[in-house]
Amino acid sequence: MSRVAILGATGAVGLEMLKVMEERKFPVSDLLLLSSPRNAGRAIYWRGMEYRVQEATPENFAGVDIVLSAVSSEVAKVLVPQAVAQGAVVVDNSSAFRLDPQVPLVIPEVNLQDVAMHRGIIANPNCSTIIALVVIKPLHDYACVRRMVVSTYQAVSGAGAGGLAELEEQVRGHVLGQETSPEVFSYPIAFNLIPQIDAFTPNGYTNEEMKMQNEAQKILHSPDLRVSCTCVRVPVFRSHCEAITLETERRLSPEKARELLAGAPGVQLIDDPASRGYPMPLYSSHQDLIQVGRIRTDISAENSLVLWVAGDQVRKGAATNAVQIAERLL
Amino acid sequence: MSRVAILGATGAVGLEMLKVMEERKFPVSDLLLLSSPRNAGRAIYWRGMEYRVQEATPENFAGVDIVLSAVSSEVAKVLVPQAVAQGAVVVDNSSAFRLDPQVPLVIPEVNLQDVAMHRGIIANPNCSTIIALVVIKPLHDYACVRRMVVSTYQAVSGAGAGGLAELEEQVRGHVLGQETSPEVFSYPIAFNLIPQIDAFTPNGYTNEEMKMQNEAQKILHSPDLRVSCTCVRVPVFRSHCEAITLETERRLSPEKARELLAGAPGVQLIDDPASRGYPMPLYSSHQDLIQVGRIRTDISAENSLVLWVAGDQVRKGAATNAVQIAERLL
Repeated sequence: MSRVAILGATGAVGLEMLKVMEERKFPVSDLLLLSSPRNAGRAIYWRGMEYRVQEATPENFAGVDIVLSAVSSEVAKVLVPQAVAQGAVVVDNSSAFRLDPQVPLVIPEVNLQDVAMHRGIIANPNCSTIIALVVIKPLHDYACVRRMVVSTYQAVSGAGAGGLAELEEQVRGHVLGQETSPEVFSYPIAFNLIPQIDAFTPNGYTNEEMKMQNEAQKILHSPDLRVSCTCVRVPVFRSHCEAITLETERRLSPEKARELLAGAPGVQLIDDPASRGYPMPLYSSHQDLIQVGRIRTDISAENSLVLWVAGDQVRKGAATNAVQIAERLL
Repeated sequence: MSRVAILGATGAVGLEMLKVMEERKFPVSDLLLLSSPRNAGRAIYWRGMEYRVQEATPENFAGVDIVLSAVSSEVAKVLVPQAVAQGAVVVDNSSAFRLDPQVPLVIPEVNLQDVAMHRGIIANPNCSTIIALVVIKPLHDYACVRRMVVSTYQAVSGAGAGGLAELEEQVRGHVLGQETSPEVFSYPIAFNLIPQIDAFTPNGYTNEEMKMQNEAQKILHSPDLRVSCTCVRVPVFRSHCEAITLETERRLSPEKARELLAGAPGVQLIDDPASRGYPMPLYSSHQDLIQVGRIRTDISAENSLVLWVAGDQVRKGAATNAVQIAERLL
């Protein structure tokens, strides 16, 4: 039994972490819910008990075994090292430590063994990276992926509870004829697409787009892997989708890919065009499997495969992945 | 002055053709509005006059100079040859004749000269093809495009007036707590993504996806061009977007691409990341320019460029392109 703290307990991912821990019967002796001063004092019910959210301070971490952190990079950079200094192991969902060579970056279905080399921090990858790599790992093991071209269709939950509320509010405004103005996103997201997530880097890609290459190289231990990504916010609530083209060293037929994916951990193969069977956000939400379908041989290049994935961004893209890592720590 | 018939005058594209003809002061001496029996009898106002929609029959085409056709392939296959037999020239928006070697397939900004070889029918390309190629043509002339990897984000207007109404109805139902069931689309489209447009072909691509390669080869006179496309329906009303990776024979820098596109006909360059300037469906709708931005060097391959386009599917993707072709016929 562990003493567990949730850092960022009132956010979309923090609340989902609590839900996933309850579902998976995560063994907890003491539970500490921490947040920014703004949300401190709120009551959260968990396993039939009321917990009072406390303001996160360095002192809170005394005696805590495991911290599940779902705060921004800026906050994580300050608080996570303080938790580690007091003896806690932190599973951090932010991008603050992901590329630190001393921090394992872990998707349990892909590189669980990397947890062993941690020095107090284990990083949870970006949601889009998790959703892609759970599916790509078995294909990579067989055929060695050299290059990926990815277009994402990312849900508003990626911007947290505020993103979910903003889409809801704009759609209400559309139906009821009320004016709304965007706050979480830079432009209206209802009935729109925003081809920018996170800030731009000098090469013209956004940080979000570069994460796919940087994190995939680390997680797959493939420093030569090349990934070109276009990340787009779409008016969908919770599940991210991705159109992925995979160029491989070894030829990989759709039949072989389906065979490899049918039994892969964390994957649900839905690839039945004749019955209109393929992954969609509405049907991949509120559960943990990453759906994959639309698997076909790329007609535009040799040794190239095209597929389409969908996964719940809040769960396997964030909360569930972190809880799975924490289970390994027990 | 021409005698003009609009075939499919009550559909989303037919109505937009009338609007575009009015805006562009298309010279018309007689106007005939034709539809299915179901919509015959409806009144449509155009240039301040009331026109009564008539049922489309072979006899209607007698004496007509130009037919702008916006009906399904099945209907076009029957009626278009009958119009041609009676001396009309038909600009057909369906896919029925697009790949016929005797039928020019024309985007005025790209291959207007092909109109000259027509034998009564000129085909209007698929909306996604038009939106991509208006932008790609100047880049192709400079660098020779060999391969394209495209992910589309396609608006519901691509399914006609019924598609627009269905998204509106589902969003109303969501806000007002009313049950709705999909009719035009196979699954709910509000807050969802449907990775299937048109039927599947044996190679695992849909017809819609294959159109991009088949039509681009013909329009660009590049039989060796290879295109791998993933077409996805998104909950957006009128504008299609596309994430495009272009592999070229000659190196093409983002700077050179911007220079080529800044003055290109039919193109609006919106590529200013620092000011969050990029194409979006909400701001590319109800006008004719194809917006392009997010231009960057592909970090995953040599001689490869990535970009993002948006264009109004009903206008330049269908109605305006057809009217432009008809203007050439005058």
